[in-house]
Order: sequence, then structure tokens, then C-alpha cells
Amino acid sequence: MRVLGIDPGLQTTGFGLVDVEGSHLHYVASGTIRTRDAAQGDLPGRLKIIFDGVREVVGRYEPTVASVEIVFVNVNPQSTLLLGQARGAALAGLVSCQLAVNEYTALQMKKAITGHGLARKEQIQEMVARLLKLPGLPSKDAADALGIAICHAHAGTSFAAVAKAGGTLNRRTHAQFKGGRSY
Amino acid sequence: MRVLGIDPGLQTTGFGLVDVEGSHLHYVASGTIRTRDAAQGDLPGRLKIIFDGVREVVGRYEPTVASVEIVFVNVNPQSTLLLGQARGAALAGLVSCQLAVNEYTALQMKKAITGHGLARKEQIQEMVARLLKLPGLPSKDAADALGIAICHAHAGTSFAAVAKAGGTLNRRTHAQFKGGRSY
Repeated sequence: MRVLGIDPGLQTTGFGLVDVEGSHLHYVASGTIRTRDAAQGDLPGRLKIIFDGVREVVGRYEPTVASVEIVFVNVNPQSTLLLGQARGAALAGLVSCQLAVNEYTALQMKKAITGHGLARKEQIQEMVARLLKLPGLPSKDAADALGIAICHAHAGTSFAAVAKAGGTLNRRTHAQFKGGRSY
Repeated sequence: MRVLGIDPGLQTTGFGLVDVEGSHLHYVASGTIRTRDAAQGDLPGRLKIIFDGVREVVGRYEPTVASVEIVFVNVNPQSTLLLGQARGAALAGLVSCQLAVNEYTALQMKKAITGHGLARKEQIQEMVARLLKLPGLPSKDAADALGIAICHAHAGTSFAAVAKAGGTLNRRTHAQFKGGRSY
């Protein structure tokens, strides 16, 4: 299984790819799609950069599944609206490639990576580097995207282990861990 | 010029197409893309319906330009986030077809259609039906989308008239009328 993790944002959308073999994780690639330099105020143009960028990553690395961070409402409602549109364009890019999309909150990702939900950005970077045996620290955006990919890998492994142990999967636990979809 | 107007929403995205010949407007088609019946809570799936639906409309009617309503922040921040994602998917559908996208606020549309910004939904429906010589009232969603298309047609006509009169187009006025982009 190759998981593509996406951390959506209007200025910077992080992506990270991880191969999963049983309980082993292998780093494939990571990076960012940036729209900062795009013509100021041209929202459709910036959304096109995100949409095309996501499709390019999918085309190049051929992931089997996608894992996307659930974004939260901002103090500034206008920023919430912009972030929503950026995430909508990123998801459109994924589903237009027929990729199945899983969604996790930042809290779920932090718990999966560091064991607790209050982890700072630096701790995410360190743990992602350790889990994937990277020679250096990934950028913060890439670390979040790799973290979201690892979060889905862990979820898959847990469910497989439960299924192996007799298939007594508690639907509620499953939903809590996997979903957290608040819409 | 064939203008595709889009009124984005997560449950219902309205679309309307209008042909513009000089100052004459001709109704082409209108309708809605609905995600209401989609699996509850499956946001990526609902965004795919919007994205695919917009592309299908573009493929079928081959508009030369798109005109999209600028959505506003909701009282409920979570709704704002969802609306943003729906609009992001709709815009991704348009730009993935290489269509140029113009954006207008509901206020600009209402002024263009009825002459004032406080028009009720019913007034929009009536004026759209009158302007396009429709045999009956369009649905509210379709009326808004047709209104956004007509709003762009009027903007184009005004600019053409200004250009004809000597090209003394005030950039600020242009931006105010055409854009109203508040991001």
C-alpha cells in the first residue's frame, strides 16, 4: 500500500508519500505545492495550481490511497472560507484520479505519531524523521503531510491486527479512530 | 459569448447558461447539481459529484467563459468551511476545463438584475424570467446562477461601451464592478 498524505492550505499544500509493508514504513517522497507567488487575488488561478499539483503528484507516484487532514475553522471567517476552497480543490484533484480518500484530524495525526495530541510542530518533524529513518528533518508542511499518511498506515495496521485476532472490530472505536468527520 | 453562471453550494450547485449577442441575451439551459442524496458525511464523494457535474455541464454546453458567485461566511463556521470546500470543487471543475472564471458577489448580481441590492429571491426569479423571456419562473438556484451569468454579460457590455467611447476605463471602477474580491 502506498499512502499519499495531504495537508491542505491556500498558500502551501504539503504532500508526503509512504509505502506500507506490514508494520514497516518506507519514505517515498514529500514536498509542497505553493501558490504564494501566483497573481495576488486570483483565487481560481491559485486553486488550479493546487488541483493540478495534486494530480501531478498522483500521476508521478501512483499512490493506492489518499489521507487528508481535516482542516478547522479559523478565528477569521474569511480565512476559513479560503482554506475550505483550497481543501475543496485538493480533494477534487484526488477524487478526479479515482483515489479513495480517508480523513483525519490534526489531533488524530499527532496521537498516531507522538502518542499525545498536544505535540508541537517540531516534535512532529522529529518523530516523522525517526519513524521513516530520514537523514534530516522534513519541512513542517511536509512533516504534517507525512504524518497524515503514517496516521492512515497505522489505522490500517490496527484494523488488520484486530481482524486477524478474530474480527471483533468495534464499529464505534473504528469510526472514532478512522473518521472524526465533524460534518 | 456563452456565459456559464455558477451558484455554488454543498447540497445544491445551480448552473445557468446564457448566450450574449451585443445587448441581446438568449437563454440556453439551467439546472442544479445535487449531492443531497449522496452517502451522508462522505464529503470527498459529494465534492466529486460537484466537480464531475460542473465538467459535464461545460462539456455539454461549451461555454466561452464562467461567472461564479462569491460566497460569504456563514453564522456557523462549520457551514462556512463546507461551503468553501464545495466552491473549491466547483472552481476546480471550471479551471480544469481551461475556462476563465469571473467572480461577482450576490450584491453585484442583484444590482445588475433588479437595479438594487436588497432584492428578494422571488424578484430575482421574476427579473431573470423577464430578461431571458422564459415561459415560467426558473427555480431559485437556477435563477441565481442565470443571474450571475447575466451579471457578467452586463459587465462585458459596459466595458465594451466604455472601450468604444474612448477606452478611458478606470481600473479601480473596473475592479470594483468586476471583482469585489475580498481575499
